[in-house]
Amino acid sequence: MIKNYIESNQQRFLDELFDLLRIPSVSADSRHKADVRKAAEYLKNKLIEAGVDKAELHETPGHPIVYAEKIVNPSLPTILVYGHYDVQPPDPLNLWESPPFEPVIKDGKIYARGSCDDKGQVYMHVKAFEAMMKLKTLTCNVKFMIEGEEEVGSENLENFVKANKEKLKSDIILISDTALISLEHPSITAGLRGLSYVEVEVTGPNRDLHSGVYGGAVANPINVLSKMIASLHDENGRVTIPGFYDKVAELSQAERDAINKAPFNLDNYKKELGIVEVQGEKGYTTLERTGIRPTLDVNGIWGGYTGEGAKTVLPSKAYAKISMRLVPNQNNQEITQLFTRHFLSIAPKSVQVKVTALHGGEAAVTPTDSDAFRAASAAFKEVFGKAPIPTRDGGSIPIVALFKKELGLDTVLMGFGFDSDAIHSPNEHYGVKNFLMGIETIVSFYKHYSKN
Amino acid sequence: MIKNYIESNQQRFLDELFDLLRIPSVSADSRHKADVRKAAEYLKNKLIEAGVDKAELHETPGHPIVYAEKIVNPSLPTILVYGHYDVQPPDPLNLWESPPFEPVIKDGKIYARGSCDDKGQVYMHVKAFEAMMKLKTLTCNVKFMIEGEEEVGSENLENFVKANKEKLKSDIILISDTALISLEHPSITAGLRGLSYVEVEVTGPNRDLHSGVYGGAVANPINVLSKMIASLHDENGRVTIPGFYDKVAELSQAERDAINKAPFNLDNYKKELGIVEVQGEKGYTTLERTGIRPTLDVNGIWGGYTGEGAKTVLPSKAYAKISMRLVPNQNNQEITQLFTRHFLSIAPKSVQVKVTALHGGEAAVTPTDSDAFRAASAAFKEVFGKAPIPTRDGGSIPIVALFKKELGLDTVLMGFGFDSDAIHSPNEHYGVKNFLMGIETIVSFYKHYSKN
Repeated sequence: MIKNYIESNQQRFLDELFDLLRIPSVSADSRHKADVRKAAEYLKNKLIEAGVDKAELHETPGHPIVYAEKIVNPSLPTILVYGHYDVQPPDPLNLWESPPFEPVIKDGKIYARGSCDDKGQVYMHVKAFEAMMKLKTLTCNVKFMIEGEEEVGSENLENFVKANKEKLKSDIILISDTALISLEHPSITAGLRGLSYVEVEVTGPNRDLHSGVYGGAVANPINVLSKMIASLHDENGRVTIPGFYDKVAELSQAERDAINKAPFNLDNYKKELGIVEVQGEKGYTTLERTGIRPTLDVNGIWGGYTGEGAKTVLPSKAYAKISMRLVPNQNNQEITQLFTRHFLSIAPKSVQVKVTALHGGEAAVTPTDSDAFRAASAAFKEVFGKAPIPTRDGGSIPIVALFKKELGLDTVLMGFGFDSDAIHSPNEHYGVKNFLMGIETIVSFYKHYSKN
Repeated sequence: MIKNYIESNQQRFLDELFDLLRIPSVSADSRHKADVRKAAEYLKNKLIEAGVDKAELHETPGHPIVYAEKIVNPSLPTILVYGHYDVQPPDPLNLWESPPFEPVIKDGKIYARGSCDDKGQVYMHVKAFEAMMKLKTLTCNVKFMIEGEEEVGSENLENFVKANKEKLKSDIILISDTALISLEHPSITAGLRGLSYVEVEVTGPNRDLHSGVYGGAVANPINVLSKMIASLHDENGRVTIPGFYDKVAELSQAERDAINKAPFNLDNYKKELGIVEVQGEKGYTTLERTGIRPTLDVNGIWGGYTGEGAKTVLPSKAYAKISMRLVPNQNNQEITQLFTRHFLSIAPKSVQVKVTALHGGEAAVTPTDSDAFRAASAAFKEVFGKAPIPTRDGGSIPIVALFKKELGLDTVLMGFGFDSDAIHSPNEHYGVKNFLMGIETIVSFYKHYSKN
């Protein structure tokens, strides 16, 4: 029945998703403020058409939050669906094979910024809800909370959650913003890393200098910054910030073995990324490095002359954006403080250093022994024909820790993307099959969860 | 007589220079190709107006070379004036207090890109020549060779010089493209550093990745590049490239003492640059570090996300522009090879590295015991009231070594800028006084040199 409904409506589902993908709702770029709102309005209207009791935009100092609900019966269990309608900046634009905000289907995949992260996955929930309403199979209550600031740190969501605990009262959170291992190996994310993201500025002389006249006598902020960044890892790939690992939850060998049982082929991984060797913390496998270990990456660096040709400048300033992925028990604010203190301490006297915290979020582990997790497992098994594997994901969804803290609620991370979907990168895509099977799996989850 | 001429014509001299400064002849930027030619045409016409026998543009695969000459009598000595009419890119534009190509005079200084380097200094020669023609005091022959590719490595000048040895036959080269210590302490540059300039590209994965999903398991090209750059200097500030110092001409203590006798106040130097400490090769003074020691500076670096806000990308590529200043006996092509070999050798297997040589030039030392140097000294003494100090400059004018090699000619570096003129930087400027005294000194040089 649900299969039929999806099949006969799939073209319309895709057309509607394409309309949403065409809106460049880049939350990090203030020039797109109106577009971000447009995406929120679009979702609100689609939720109303699908049959919610009410839908509204909650204003924030940043971008609005879409809230909607359908209360079938207050005595039934309530599912709170969280997602986000904002997207990452599309840069570098020149590497896209088709424009980021003009979705196209190629080889069964939808190419567009946000196709997987997270508009495509959010829209599965809207259409799953529509299907249950049309087929009259909805046997629980649903609340939707779709924000527009996930890609910039969900800054205003916390206040919204704190101020609306009654409104958001539910039994479980359901989020689709993660990845499956493959369609043959369905998986459910049982852990997520936290994040501490900073920007650093190194200032040498008070103006750009001629590198011939001053080179060798005045500290070059790019050279200094490079040296400071280089010193943040030791020869074993460990982060050198004092105290960085102090609170890291160390897993038992049994837990590590379980993680390494997930289907993973290092040769294919390297081949798919075009690399000859992986690189990371000594003593850990690739799955452990991305799943259970904290890391530090420079996400951007700039300084001096970066145009065509040669300019012999000794620049006044150099900058970097640096983020740390955190694991359970590491507090992101504490880590940001440790980073800041350490980074300032290693600066030579010849430069001035400024560290600005950009955003952060806590790591989270979701229980695998709950009714909700079992319902999700059953749903995957029903649709994919195979029980899903619990995995630890490297990415961060800070809201998961926030929900636990403020609402006391656990989350089920039922994501349908692939790691290879190029989210945050040029040519982001999302499988049409993933989109349609996702809708079916969500409907199945509601069914199994309502049985409890 | 010359003083009167300069005084009564100074407004016109400045107006004409301003017209030249308004032409954005940025040789590194192909969008300015027509502007570069316009500056060449302007100079050619002004040389004709000033009274040369002939003036012409020599076409090259890049930008044209302005050649002009006035042969008073073939039996008289001939001075070959070299300079360049191209300028550095004006970036970063937002740091200019007035637009780079709209010259203005503030506090007695002309603010514009190229005001000092080198249009302002080239134009002194055109006006000095005009004055001598008008006053009928020119008692030697003059040839002008003003190129448009100095800021991008003078690539086509070498062929021009090789192909026109007869045309360029002269007794001495005169160049104004360097700096004075101050108006109170006139100086003549007796040594210049060479240059090797490369661009490096570090490639990790074949596409930008989500740093949450892949961070910690895949080599980040920015982190790797930072580490590679950091390793290029040891703890004593020495360059670690094997063989880098092998051919460096080591100076005697007496020579070093002479260099350190130049008026120099470290506190003022630091104050003027807004820095707390200088930084450089251990065991050398600031004047030695910029004058007689080779160095390595990163002139630009870029990679990953550099826009507003936070983007958690693990980029595919990172880049840097790196230049080395060289001293006598170091060969720039050899140094470029040593750099390339070393840089490739220190790359971890997890990345691919590409090194592209952008340009280079040899270091040069000019003799201080020649007739020409003595004439220059006498000219400074006449106009500034004080004998000039011979100095070693950190910058590079590769043409000096080329002239020696191809034409067998020595050069007199009679520059009138200041190190603080912010050449290659925002708010480049040049003192009106420097400009006018420069014209007078050049005329005096001709007088003294012709006496020989």
